[in-house]
Amino acid sequence: MRGGLAILNRIIRVNVRTYEIVEKKASEEEVRIGGRHFIAHLLSSEVPPTCEPLGRHNKLVVSMGLFADTGVSTAGQLSIGGKSPLTGGVKESNSGGYAGRRIARLGIKAIIFEDLPDKEETRVLVVSKKGIELVDMPQLRFKPVSETFDLLRSKFGENKGLICIGPAGEMKMHGAGVACASDDKIQVRYAGRGGLGAVMGSKGVKAIVVDDYGALPAKHHDAALLRETSKKIAAALKEDPKSKNRKLYGTLDIMDMANSIGILPTRNFSKGSFEPAKEWTGPKFVETVSQRGGVGASGKPCAPGCTIQCSNVFPYADGTRIVASIQYESIALLGSNLEIPNLDDIGELNNLCNEVGVDTIETGAALGIAMEAGVCSFGDAEGAKQMIREIGRGTPLGRILGNGAAFAGQAFGIRRVPAAKGQAMPGYDPRALKGNGVTYVTSNMGADHTSGNCFETARTNNPLGRENQVYNSRQIQVRAAILDTIGLCLFIRPAFVRYPKLLTDLFRAALGWDMEFAEVRKLGERILDIERMFNERAGVSEKFKPLPEYMREEPLPPNNTVFDITEEEMQAIWDVPVNYEVF
Amino acid sequence: MRGGLAILNRIIRVNVRTYEIVEKKASEEEVRIGGRHFIAHLLSSEVPPTCEPLGRHNKLVVSMGLFADTGVSTAGQLSIGGKSPLTGGVKESNSGGYAGRRIARLGIKAIIFEDLPDKEETRVLVVSKKGIELVDMPQLRFKPVSETFDLLRSKFGENKGLICIGPAGEMKMHGAGVACASDDKIQVRYAGRGGLGAVMGSKGVKAIVVDDYGALPAKHHDAALLRETSKKIAAALKEDPKSKNRKLYGTLDIMDMANSIGILPTRNFSKGSFEPAKEWTGPKFVETVSQRGGVGASGKPCAPGCTIQCSNVFPYADGTRIVASIQYESIALLGSNLEIPNLDDIGELNNLCNEVGVDTIETGAALGIAMEAGVCSFGDAEGAKQMIREIGRGTPLGRILGNGAAFAGQAFGIRRVPAAKGQAMPGYDPRALKGNGVTYVTSNMGADHTSGNCFETARTNNPLGRENQVYNSRQIQVRAAILDTIGLCLFIRPAFVRYPKLLTDLFRAALGWDMEFAEVRKLGERILDIERMFNERAGVSEKFKPLPEYMREEPLPPNNTVFDITEEEMQAIWDVPVNYEVF
Repeated sequence: MRGGLAILNRIIRVNVRTYEIVEKKASEEEVRIGGRHFIAHLLSSEVPPTCEPLGRHNKLVVSMGLFADTGVSTAGQLSIGGKSPLTGGVKESNSGGYAGRRIARLGIKAIIFEDLPDKEETRVLVVSKKGIELVDMPQLRFKPVSETFDLLRSKFGENKGLICIGPAGEMKMHGAGVACASDDKIQVRYAGRGGLGAVMGSKGVKAIVVDDYGALPAKHHDAALLRETSKKIAAALKEDPKSKNRKLYGTLDIMDMANSIGILPTRNFSKGSFEPAKEWTGPKFVETVSQRGGVGASGKPCAPGCTIQCSNVFPYADGTRIVASIQYESIALLGSNLEIPNLDDIGELNNLCNEVGVDTIETGAALGIAMEAGVCSFGDAEGAKQMIREIGRGTPLGRILGNGAAFAGQAFGIRRVPAAKGQAMPGYDPRALKGNGVTYVTSNMGADHTSGNCFETARTNNPLGRENQVYNSRQIQVRAAILDTIGLCLFIRPAFVRYPKLLTDLFRAALGWDMEFAEVRKLGERILDIERMFNERAGVSEKFKPLPEYMREEPLPPNNTVFDITEEEMQAIWDVPVNYEVF
Repeated sequence: MRGGLAILNRIIRVNVRTYEIVEKKASEEEVRIGGRHFIAHLLSSEVPPTCEPLGRHNKLVVSMGLFADTGVSTAGQLSIGGKSPLTGGVKESNSGGYAGRRIARLGIKAIIFEDLPDKEETRVLVVSKKGIELVDMPQLRFKPVSETFDLLRSKFGENKGLICIGPAGEMKMHGAGVACASDDKIQVRYAGRGGLGAVMGSKGVKAIVVDDYGALPAKHHDAALLRETSKKIAAALKEDPKSKNRKLYGTLDIMDMANSIGILPTRNFSKGSFEPAKEWTGPKFVETVSQRGGVGASGKPCAPGCTIQCSNVFPYADGTRIVASIQYESIALLGSNLEIPNLDDIGELNNLCNEVGVDTIETGAALGIAMEAGVCSFGDAEGAKQMIREIGRGTPLGRILGNGAAFAGQAFGIRRVPAAKGQAMPGYDPRALKGNGVTYVTSNMGADHTSGNCFETARTNNPLGRENQVYNSRQIQVRAAILDTIGLCLFIRPAFVRYPKLLTDLFRAALGWDMEFAEVRKLGERILDIERMFNERAGVSEKFKPLPEYMREEPLPPNNTVFDITEEEMQAIWDVPVNYEVF
């Protein structure tokens, strides 16, 4: 067992058919890659691009970023990856929570689940300093997420890293995500996108328990420089107004602007603003939380040591928990998109998604389609809750909705499906934020704002115009690939945008790698290329997956714009030069 | 209006949004193409390959073959085409019935439906010598197929060519087909494959009524030669043992061999033979039909003038109709595949599919998956009937099943999905008839036996071996493309196999075209190439759509073979030289 090396060098392979667990030391090449990069590399080398996502040739990968155990703010994000059942392409989805840092503390770079069980199984991978074991736990079968976490805590003790899927993942629904617990026992974070919960379910793995008791903290190349850089990053975040607002208001900080510039998905993406959303501002939310008291809280970290602290615990009027944490995307997709005005209802919908184990974005979009099809009315919060419960029960309706937006669109014969590359769009209608349309279509991850969110450009570049959108998306996609690879949260970006040297200092301090800033950018570019090649071989590149046609035909109120960047312009994104100077 | 030209030269375009109907004379190029060739050409020139199959850029094409109005045995098959919602590629599906010949009699080569209605509509295209009109008939909304035909007969009179979709097509389910009536008011034929009923539904077209009253028969280039060739074809068929058996036993003729060589889909394609199928022989079937009397009949034509007459009317014990006609594929997919032993039950399932308007192959495969998922048990005939009724009612379960096998597999998290290129496999398990596996994967039409059925090679080439399968599939695919283009039924092939000159004589007699036999073969090759290019641009070629993995992993009893022709070998099919000498 390694003792405190900064470089994660343990690679664990778990064969879910034979129960065989094999550990290998990372090769020199593998040492230099982490998180999203590791996933892209592994898929490219070992997974046939056209294989069935839920078949024996796909692999589920849990991988740590390069700076996983540095203690830098936001470090320890957990990357989960595999060939996506939703997009058919490479997928990396990452999450906060307390498991990531513990996996890193054990020196583990990656856990790779291979093959398929011979019959349906409910197993838990238990990882500790003592060893790694695949344990049958049939008592967890179809248990909701919070009960699963509770049962795991009662069996394995508190303060363990916990990762699990809900019944949706066990039923291999393509909208299923992977849940990550916090030690506070109240927050649940999700690697929600891409249907990786279904991949985990197909492997018969219900949960992962990580016990880092007795493991030594990593020894870094230049501990003093690391401490200093880490402090500078925290200071940079502290002085950044956007990051300040994130601590105050969480991701709800952007609601007001999203609604006022007309990009807030409303009524199954048929409008871009929602009158009741004016009440969903950050300050009002925090006021409510504070008035209600009880477990309510804002400005909470989702992972140990994070100084941004954008999370919250949203309470009922009586102070008990509705959901923790509630975020912009979930409110957009489960709220305005369904024309549900009451934030308590939206919180309950969010919590129900967390319990059955589905992505709130994918599911909110699917519910919007079901409402357009008349399954229940827009605005019917109780109807919406019932639909999510049906996902958990696996009724026919639940199976339609749990498989995501594109699936629901086909089931109900609805043409207005807000999805790109098979995956539902997050809370930014591309007709009024065209840069995100470019990202949805061209990203290797499908419609995923975390892979290139151009919202930040809306103040400086007309979001309704055609200008610079492809260029901006390209630059931000490169940045996202870097952050997903080093294992830091996207929200750390203001620090590096302002002080790019902090990023190269971090490489030097943590790993002893001397990298020019341009080299870091090139790293991001390379990762995108590896992913793109996989997707091209899988037949799911943007060449074959255009934006939904209605988004070019139906003007979006209140701006009444359509999406008018051509597919050819978007497909040319790979020729757009990367700016190596700025983050 | 044309008066009796052999060459169909009217091309009708119907805009379903504006109600505008435009007629044009066929160009010189268009004159030379028909049926499947016309569809491939039109899609390639006018439909963006990556467009949404149910969107405004797809087109629904009804096209007549080159020999449509010749009176040759089987002439008048109706080709229906468009970009398939199931496969995402080019699709042509053809059918007997009495409409095709009437469309040809009116000199019409093709009817092309364009655009989308602004809201959901229920319209009927009425075609006669007096003109062409798109008529609103909301009273037909969601009416089953036989009631639709009855209502059309009572409004427009008897002996009209009738084409319609059932509720499944109106609900845009991807398993929906297009029904074609017979003047006998008892038979229903289907252009079942590829989900073209959903394309018709998306255009808001419930039915097409064709009245050829007053239209003159075509004047052919060499009427005497045509009469003579036509007689020779009929004689060739009469002396051919396979064709004789078809008249006697219909397509049930092959049941015994399919079951005994172990290719009969059984229990969701997990076995290749079914004990009760030994009772489903042609002779026993005919005996039952004859004993029961009433409307029961075998040896019936499905289209005017056909001398093969493979159709039947399958009656209950009391002599009333169960279904007309019942065929091998439907019995395989709705019978053995569901482990339903009773032919009356299977006939009822077949009739229910006809009524709600879904393909029996796609639906039987979907039901097999639902049974494997435990929706009801294998062998539960009443449960199966209930499931098909749910398709017609559009319940959530019905929407899952009505969208076909691949969709049902995703919904229920079932890996054993017998589909290729998104479309369900017909009644020949490719593990024991490997040539058909090649066809399923490489055909431009997806898993479709009519595009290259290697069953006929099973006596001369070991169906379990790897030898010659790619070669055979290639040759038979070329032949199928020719037959689908000239508008004759596949079952006419024995005549041309034995006397290739009859085919070139037919071109000369009917159209005045002097073609060497090799040129006819080259025509077939060219059609496949046009289709392939469309599919490659759509991203749905065999490069990205391998055979389901379980067929390479799970041996199929009783032969216990897996499919072992590599994807690379299959992808090389386009380099296999076409044999220009034999049909």
